[in-house]
Amino acid sequence: MFRSHTCGELRLTQAGSSVTLAGWVQTVRKFGAITFVDLRDRYGITQLVFNEGFNQQLDENPLGREFVLQAKGTVIERSNKNPAIPTGEIELEVSAFTILNKSAVPPFTIQDDTDGGDDIRMKYRYLDLRRNAVKKNLELRYAVNRSARNYLHENAFMDIETPFLIKSTPEGARDFVVPSRMNQGQFYALPQSPQTFKQLLMVSGYDRYYQIVKCFRDEDLRADRQPEFTQIDCEMAFVEQEDILNMFETLIKRIFKDVKHIDYTDAVERMTWEDAMWQYGNDKPDIRFDMKICTLKKPSTVYFNKQDHATLINDAGFVVFDAAESVMAIAVPGGATFTRKQLDELTEWVKRPQIGMKGLAYIRYNEDGSLKSSIDKFYNEDRLKGIAAASGAHPGDIVLILAGAEERTRKATSELRLEMGKQLGLRKEDEFKLLWVLDFPLFEYAEEENRWVARHHPFTSPKPSQIQTMIENDPLIHDAANYLSHPYAQIKANAYDMVLNGNEIGGGSIRIFQRELQEKMFAALGMSEEEALHKFGFLLGAFEYGAPPHGGIAFGFDRLCSILGGSESIRDFIAFPKNNSGRDVMLDAPSSIDEKQLVELGIGVRDEG
Amino acid sequence: MFRSHTCGELRLTQAGSSVTLAGWVQTVRKFGAITFVDLRDRYGITQLVFNEGFNQQLDENPLGREFVLQAKGTVIERSNKNPAIPTGEIELEVSAFTILNKSAVPPFTIQDDTDGGDDIRMKYRYLDLRRNAVKKNLELRYAVNRSARNYLHENAFMDIETPFLIKSTPEGARDFVVPSRMNQGQFYALPQSPQTFKQLLMVSGYDRYYQIVKCFRDEDLRADRQPEFTQIDCEMAFVEQEDILNMFETLIKRIFKDVKHIDYTDAVERMTWEDAMWQYGNDKPDIRFDMKICTLKKPSTVYFNKQDHATLINDAGFVVFDAAESVMAIAVPGGATFTRKQLDELTEWVKRPQIGMKGLAYIRYNEDGSLKSSIDKFYNEDRLKGIAAASGAHPGDIVLILAGAEERTRKATSELRLEMGKQLGLRKEDEFKLLWVLDFPLFEYAEEENRWVARHHPFTSPKPSQIQTMIENDPLIHDAANYLSHPYAQIKANAYDMVLNGNEIGGGSIRIFQRELQEKMFAALGMSEEEALHKFGFLLGAFEYGAPPHGGIAFGFDRLCSILGGSESIRDFIAFPKNNSGRDVMLDAPSSIDEKQLVELGIGVRDEG
Repeated sequence: MFRSHTCGELRLTQAGSSVTLAGWVQTVRKFGAITFVDLRDRYGITQLVFNEGFNQQLDENPLGREFVLQAKGTVIERSNKNPAIPTGEIELEVSAFTILNKSAVPPFTIQDDTDGGDDIRMKYRYLDLRRNAVKKNLELRYAVNRSARNYLHENAFMDIETPFLIKSTPEGARDFVVPSRMNQGQFYALPQSPQTFKQLLMVSGYDRYYQIVKCFRDEDLRADRQPEFTQIDCEMAFVEQEDILNMFETLIKRIFKDVKHIDYTDAVERMTWEDAMWQYGNDKPDIRFDMKICTLKKPSTVYFNKQDHATLINDAGFVVFDAAESVMAIAVPGGATFTRKQLDELTEWVKRPQIGMKGLAYIRYNEDGSLKSSIDKFYNEDRLKGIAAASGAHPGDIVLILAGAEERTRKATSELRLEMGKQLGLRKEDEFKLLWVLDFPLFEYAEEENRWVARHHPFTSPKPSQIQTMIENDPLIHDAANYLSHPYAQIKANAYDMVLNGNEIGGGSIRIFQRELQEKMFAALGMSEEEALHKFGFLLGAFEYGAPPHGGIAFGFDRLCSILGGSESIRDFIAFPKNNSGRDVMLDAPSSIDEKQLVELGIGVRDEG
Repeated sequence: MFRSHTCGELRLTQAGSSVTLAGWVQTVRKFGAITFVDLRDRYGITQLVFNEGFNQQLDENPLGREFVLQAKGTVIERSNKNPAIPTGEIELEVSAFTILNKSAVPPFTIQDDTDGGDDIRMKYRYLDLRRNAVKKNLELRYAVNRSARNYLHENAFMDIETPFLIKSTPEGARDFVVPSRMNQGQFYALPQSPQTFKQLLMVSGYDRYYQIVKCFRDEDLRADRQPEFTQIDCEMAFVEQEDILNMFETLIKRIFKDVKHIDYTDAVERMTWEDAMWQYGNDKPDIRFDMKICTLKKPSTVYFNKQDHATLINDAGFVVFDAAESVMAIAVPGGATFTRKQLDELTEWVKRPQIGMKGLAYIRYNEDGSLKSSIDKFYNEDRLKGIAAASGAHPGDIVLILAGAEERTRKATSELRLEMGKQLGLRKEDEFKLLWVLDFPLFEYAEEENRWVARHHPFTSPKPSQIQTMIENDPLIHDAANYLSHPYAQIKANAYDMVLNGNEIGGGSIRIFQRELQEKMFAALGMSEEEALHKFGFLLGAFEYGAPPHGGIAFGFDRLCSILGGSESIRDFIAFPKNNSGRDVMLDAPSSIDEKQLVELGIGVRDEG
């Protein structure tokens, strides 16, 4: 062993001990004849003192930043202690040292505030990983991993490995495929998730399964998406939705406790998908703050049980609201004091292409109870008061109103709400709020193909009370214009998403476990019997031999870590991430391969054009 | 929850309790008006009793094998107890039941001794996984996983995930490749191991890394090899070989303790590669028994420090030995009593194509001290005694002698030794003997290309004392006939294999961490500077910035589990294995994919012929 102790370990109680340390040179400082070196390793930093006897040796072999050094010596008490670091009361009086390896000058500084840009840090990822900020992220990731495994183990879950070279059954996202040399012209696929395997394990009686496992999706990468990502993947048999919710909210609370030392004692809130969409404009609401959306006007939509407040805005001759498909408002607390300039900026903000609205109306609800609005030409004070009241505004608030096509307006209002929450400091980084979103629609309507699409995935069960509706009705949509009146439109999924601070961190469902129902699902998705058998014959077969009721969940491990670490970017929590073009710039991968390899695999690269 | 208890949980102390169980019908037996059902789940079997009141219901809905059943009732004491199972003192008096799912008659019986052949069990793997024998294997696998993680965690190792979509750098085995849609004409490779990444993590200062991780090799599959397999992959910085040996023999001992409840208190034996080859004929000797090989004659070979006993057999006019490149013997304890028939069978055995010898000579060393030999025409009793003594034979033993080309003869003698060990019951299933094999040659000679090949891999360091030999000498072999006198031929690797009962369960090395030495290694392997930079530029670059001394090891997780489980086959320890053609017969993968997918990926399938 090149060391007797780590650089984070020595304390005053060890003064007088002879020790050997090894690590990287963080800094070299010379005071008179004495040289001080901060030596760094994974565990901390220890100050080394080279007295003047070493000056010749140090002149001949000067120490540079990031040199790898082994130093023997005696632990002594420091005269000027450094309370900022755990080893700050001691230093090592060096008696001998060896340069284990030299270092060129790094292309950026290995410090919390590095001078390196994104690209250079990715190319030299092995140096970026030395920075404390990145190291803390990977340590957090490992702590989450460990905590999850411990909890799942204690609850009788078994880690069972599922295969990576599987069958391509593209459904939703694209598969990455792997040409088979031994079966030429045929391909494996890399799993988008171990979904069908974990279900088979339930059929096999394994009862409680988990895996922390890599998954693959060949999607066009948006910012902060990775072609390979990690899931905490779980499945249980003989359970209902309530059992899963209890088991896995406790898992997340355990992770809070183990990793963040937070006692999350509150009950986890629950909300239907319809309420989430209606009140927050999206299916992963950030409930750290209120500011709910008030729908003043909506078309006939999938929100079957919701009523708008159209009477509040109708018949006023305001052509913008009259012509709009929908109109929505939020009441911003304390917003009555917004300046003209602030309102102009907000108007510009909603007109940005990412938001895409035409303008922003407002009603200022002053502290004195008076109202001032951009639309008071059309609405008298009483009517404005009515709108303000419906929006939940109090004196001192401002009501912001957006109008336009339903889906875009709901999304824009949701974004505006989040932006206002941010501006008002309501989205606190150290506050964590969990939420279950429940009762998703089982299907979405695919207009182009005039068929149903599984909102979650094709293995999700409808609510128990709606299984008969699904089995007894023809899944085909014969009247495209009125697809909302098809009996399938109202079927809710036995599915659940876990949301943390406005991010979906996990999702799952109770699964179909009856062959008849599964076949009906495949038919609803436009799959022929033949296609269903070709792709999922093994699963349909398994359902013939005593499949138990079961369900599960998968957590996005990268995302969960980034939220717990207080970062927007999952890349900061992955040791060797890919960039937005799916490239590993350090490896320079993907890359061309030898023609010989292609020939062996029985494939060729197509000519462009 | 569909159950209050599992089928393995109830005991006599719970008699009188109302409980709900759920599981699979193992057997249905009717005694008069009473029906007994054995209900099975992952945890055990509980007997259910349906009294005559259920007869009508059971007639209308008969229970079949593998039906999924939920039963409510009262725990009662059994009159005829079954001491063979933990729940054998009680039974459940059923008050109500629900058939949760029916089952077709399974294609084979779900029992330890199943009537299903290999193929049918692989096709219906989800049913095979229900069998107790397979379940025990996966439970053992999880226990090994858990034990390894706990030990490594306690020793400050961090689980850090490395990427699966990497760069193709075929070196030894073939890579599986993944066409990139976003970078057309380019390919990722699936990792054969995380080797370079774990080394980069050491450069990054992570110091102690581990992962239990899937790896991929596109090799022609021999029996019991899988295209995807799992490694326990570890790396440490600031260590020497001795540190690694200590750390990881303790890991394996811990696994013995946790999983097999075996206190492995013996020191782990160590042997040089040269001794292993010389004494046992292979580099993974089974040291549960002795029966060492005696080399009577050898050509000038890589066993630089070994002497044969040629004087014992030379000048006897025995043309077979005289013409043979090498002659080797083993003394089989108690073998003097072998019958003529047994010796004929052994002769046939060594003549099988897999062994490939031309014949078998023997010297019977009778209990009374007399000798009888198949070659006593050429050797008098004194000479026979000399050969017997050199082979380590005692009265009562038999000496078996093989002659032929060196490599084949050594291998054949090794196989014969193992076969004799098996026949004599010396390879006990419940005895575990660990061994470190050390001091491998760093290089092997590739005759066709007249260059060196890395025996372990190109990142393995030579012994510290031989680094200068490697750096100072030209790696090119200018005199092919005398390659053994090239200075590189004698360089030993700083590498180690862990052997358990004749199986290599892990291997690793101290790594090169100096750019100059790594470049020399690449050159020795016939790589041009340009090629080395193209393939491994990131690693050579990393060595510029303060790479610490480091080393590691990887254990073959599948193999380790199979040995601990007492099985020859790793497939029995993999939930969803592939067959010898690399196919998953349950999924029917690999399979053809849509032309649309191929076009998107920019590749095509070559026409045959």
